[in-house]
Amino acid sequence: MATGLRTIDWDDHDNAVVLIDQTALPDTLEHLHITEVDELVEAIRRLAVRGAPALGGAGALGVALAVRQAQREGHDEQWVERAIKDVRNARPTAANLAWGVDRARARLADGPDAVVAEACAVLNEDGAANRALGSRGAELLKKLCPDVGRFRLQTHCNAGGLACVEWGTALGVVRALHREGGVARVYASETRPLLQGARLTAWELEQMGVDYRLVVDSAGPSIIAGGEVDAVVVGADRVAANGDVANKIGTFPLALAAAHVGIPFIVAAPEATIDSETATGDAIEIEDRGSDEVVAVNGTRMAPPGARGFNPAFDVTPASLVTAIVTQQRVVRPAVGELPGEAVG
Amino acid sequence: MATGLRTIDWDDHDNAVVLIDQTALPDTLEHLHITEVDELVEAIRRLAVRGAPALGGAGALGVALAVRQAQREGHDEQWVERAIKDVRNARPTAANLAWGVDRARARLADGPDAVVAEACAVLNEDGAANRALGSRGAELLKKLCPDVGRFRLQTHCNAGGLACVEWGTALGVVRALHREGGVARVYASETRPLLQGARLTAWELEQMGVDYRLVVDSAGPSIIAGGEVDAVVVGADRVAANGDVANKIGTFPLALAAAHVGIPFIVAAPEATIDSETATGDAIEIEDRGSDEVVAVNGTRMAPPGARGFNPAFDVTPASLVTAIVTQQRVVRPAVGELPGEAVG
Repeated sequence: MATGLRTIDWDDHDNAVVLIDQTALPDTLEHLHITEVDELVEAIRRLAVRGAPALGGAGALGVALAVRQAQREGHDEQWVERAIKDVRNARPTAANLAWGVDRARARLADGPDAVVAEACAVLNEDGAANRALGSRGAELLKKLCPDVGRFRLQTHCNAGGLACVEWGTALGVVRALHREGGVARVYASETRPLLQGARLTAWELEQMGVDYRLVVDSAGPSIIAGGEVDAVVVGADRVAANGDVANKIGTFPLALAAAHVGIPFIVAAPEATIDSETATGDAIEIEDRGSDEVVAVNGTRMAPPGARGFNPAFDVTPASLVTAIVTQQRVVRPAVGELPGEAVG
Repeated sequence: MATGLRTIDWDDHDNAVVLIDQTALPDTLEHLHITEVDELVEAIRRLAVRGAPALGGAGALGVALAVRQAQREGHDEQWVERAIKDVRNARPTAANLAWGVDRARARLADGPDAVVAEACAVLNEDGAANRALGSRGAELLKKLCPDVGRFRLQTHCNAGGLACVEWGTALGVVRALHREGGVARVYASETRPLLQGARLTAWELEQMGVDYRLVVDSAGPSIIAGGEVDAVVVGADRVAANGDVANKIGTFPLALAAAHVGIPFIVAAPEATIDSETATGDAIEIEDRGSDEVVAVNGTRMAPPGARGFNPAFDVTPASLVTAIVTQQRVVRPAVGELPGEAVG
């Protein structure tokens, strides 16, 4: 990933989608080389590719795959439309998947080459946006902490290249800083219940060659309070118009601890994450993913038979605790009263 | 446990130690019926009994077991001394185990019956102390929250009857409130890495018949912030002279969240937990239990090969966030400037 390896990409020679099989991580780095739509649908369904921006890329590439497969095998327009629909429905609630499909499908009338070009543009734009966001975040950190030479950072869940086409959001900031030798250590929380931190973020940090430590989720706040962290950098699932931030459960305690000791709490997220339709965090519905993920760990029940878990997937960090939200276009500081508002270009 | 079932007890008829095998929980409730010192040493070693107060009882009962086994099998004083030493060394760092052994051993000169009586006194005193502590904590909660009819509480780790001879400290408060119908719900955090919340606290709450929900550790703070909790009640491993509280990792984030929304954060702990020799929490050395417990979950490695974990076993909650410390003898309120100081009887 650090050397241009993408989570998901297009192979122009073979007319294939190439993607990292995330279900094989962190033990092995396996690439799937997909030339048929059905295989891609299957890969999306079994979460071989996941993360909103990555799924946007997968959707666009699915359309490219459909037109190339139709050319090769001599299918008609109806077949292509059905194939596109299959991709779009592979994960019905993934908004980005549908967005990516729709964007590439809009070029169908211009012919297969135009569709493929559009899909590749989606990938390139995502990569460019994350690079811009990462550099902006790194600059901001240096500005906020002028006395810190090499940063000790805390992150949470996986806001990395694996969730995107490449580079990452929160981990994109880490990557940008690391490129200039500016990272001393990253504390990554394991992120129960699904352990994205242990499985994916640890793997990305290992690939980057960053000195990192994996910690249980409840350890982050006291590591921060103990003066071992210069800044917290996390991603976001949704940012409300007032700057409240919904992100993976466990983000809010890190924000509380950062405020307690007065270090920056930075949210790194694409512009698309800012939802001006949602006034405040109170309006964000928090998904309850059900008891099973809590009462069992790694598939083995740990709690007594009949135990009931409560499993909110996200928490909301109030704007007052958010030092800055960094996107590919701007830096907003909710804690001092700046609202996300309009992008400033 | 609610009906007088003890974690560890003495069977006067068989001259046996009877204890709940905690390694079989939460799936099955098995009692070990131990008549020989070697078996008790083995049970202590493999954590069939754990928790500081429970180990105090086990130490005292170990001496009782030694004198009765010596009577039955015709062993001499040297044998008894060696057996007692084995019990005392079963877990070398467990201060309470040594304390319990020493207390019963001091009665050796008075004969076997005196030793057994002393051991039983240790058990009874622990039970009585926790009952007093529990009632005091329940009364305090009602005083602090006069408008709450039935409490919604958050706890952490296992400060229950299983860690004690019976009744429990934090769960002793829950038990006392529950007896008068005063508990609406308890949120119990699973407590990674060793999952004492999922395995032991959930089991105790199930036994009590309390409505509870198991949550991942990082969920507690946002559940509190969301207004779903009236008070946080936890145990303590050590309380410094200034009221700083060392307890299982993950306690501090709950205290931060409680302060954030202005609900009581209550520490329930025996007098012996207050360490007047330790000025502040800064002087408490935090045990790092090593990487393995973090990179693996339930024995299976989740992180990439070579991943390094950082695993502090405890955190320190500053006195300023502690609404009250409740012991069997008193209530102290560090957040308003009261220091633990001397017991007031």
